[in-house]
Amino acid sequence: MGRWQPGATERLVVAAVDLFTEQGYDATTVAQIAERAGVTRSTFFRHFSDKRELLVAGQETLSRLLAEGIADAPAPAGPLEAVAAGLERASGAMGPANRELGPRLKAAVAASTELQERDALKSVGMAAAMTAALIGRGVPEPTAQLAAELGVLAFKRGYARWSESDREDVEGLAPHALAALRDLRAATAMLD
Amino acid sequence: MGRWQPGATERLVVAAVDLFTEQGYDATTVAQIAERAGVTRSTFFRHFSDKRELLVAGQETLSRLLAEGIADAPAPAGPLEAVAAGLERASGAMGPANRELGPRLKAAVAASTELQERDALKSVGMAAAMTAALIGRGVPEPTAQLAAELGVLAFKRGYARWSESDREDVEGLAPHALAALRDLRAATAMLD
Repeated sequence: MGRWQPGATERLVVAAVDLFTEQGYDATTVAQIAERAGVTRSTFFRHFSDKRELLVAGQETLSRLLAEGIADAPAPAGPLEAVAAGLERASGAMGPANRELGPRLKAAVAASTELQERDALKSVGMAAAMTAALIGRGVPEPTAQLAAELGVLAFKRGYARWSESDREDVEGLAPHALAALRDLRAATAMLD
Repeated sequence: MGRWQPGATERLVVAAVDLFTEQGYDATTVAQIAERAGVTRSTFFRHFSDKRELLVAGQETLSRLLAEGIADAPAPAGPLEAVAAGLERASGAMGPANRELGPRLKAAVAASTELQERDALKSVGMAAAMTAALIGRGVPEPTAQLAAELGVLAFKRGYARWSESDREDVEGLAPHALAALRDLRAATAMLD
């Protein structure tokens, strides 16, 4: 198997994130993103309806997969075990393009209040999707909300470690996210 | 003591939030906010540098008070006890204007993606301020991050109950936020 090659979608996302970092979100146009990615404007519009959609497309998929993984966890699974199943499901959709994007995305978010707001809303959306899925399993409030927040933190911490790691990636995001969830679970014993 | 009367700052915030709900954040001008609040444009600009600052002004104060309360908690206090001290400190700055704003703010945020992003970033800022203050007390990661997230959830849940309660408000936000923190602490025992 040869080295992984990015497709047009991945190239467009990387180009957009780099341009956002260099010149800001507002100042970046669809034409510039397409040019940087080496595709035409009409190719851009076959993949995304606009600049903003490019940022939210992945997020909706992620929230859906987290919720589905939680809903499909075996009946006896406790709240955190169900969250772990959600993290595994969502991790399956995160490939090498997502991993390579990590440091770039971090730089772009650090440089832009607008992207910080987007990123914060993404976390809220993930938490809401997981909370609803847990309540659907009969988990009472506020345990559902707490477990969902641990899931969001675990996803973000795991993603950061995965994308910053310079070891060859054979296992994907899942083991990093699950390790982060275990760390957070252990931390609940040290709150007092 | 007579009934509490809002000052110009509070009237401007209420007017702005109502206009954001009615016609959206983007479409609302400083002139409209000032008119609705019954003040001049120059009075607006004595209180806020622009429309956006009106939204973030309270947030910075809140993050600062949360962090100061945590830093000033007695040395033997554990992470969650320090967070409780932060919640008490921040609650002291939340008066009747903040309480009455609750349902209005909720409606405005529900109606606007831009305000949802703002609101989400506010939570991230509060969590970051509390995490840093806890690390300053020697609390290790990820316990500091976990305790900070519990603090944010407790603040939001407590604020919602406080502003939705129709009983006369004699004790302010603090008892609601602290009760929410205790509920979340109890929920950590039900994660498995």
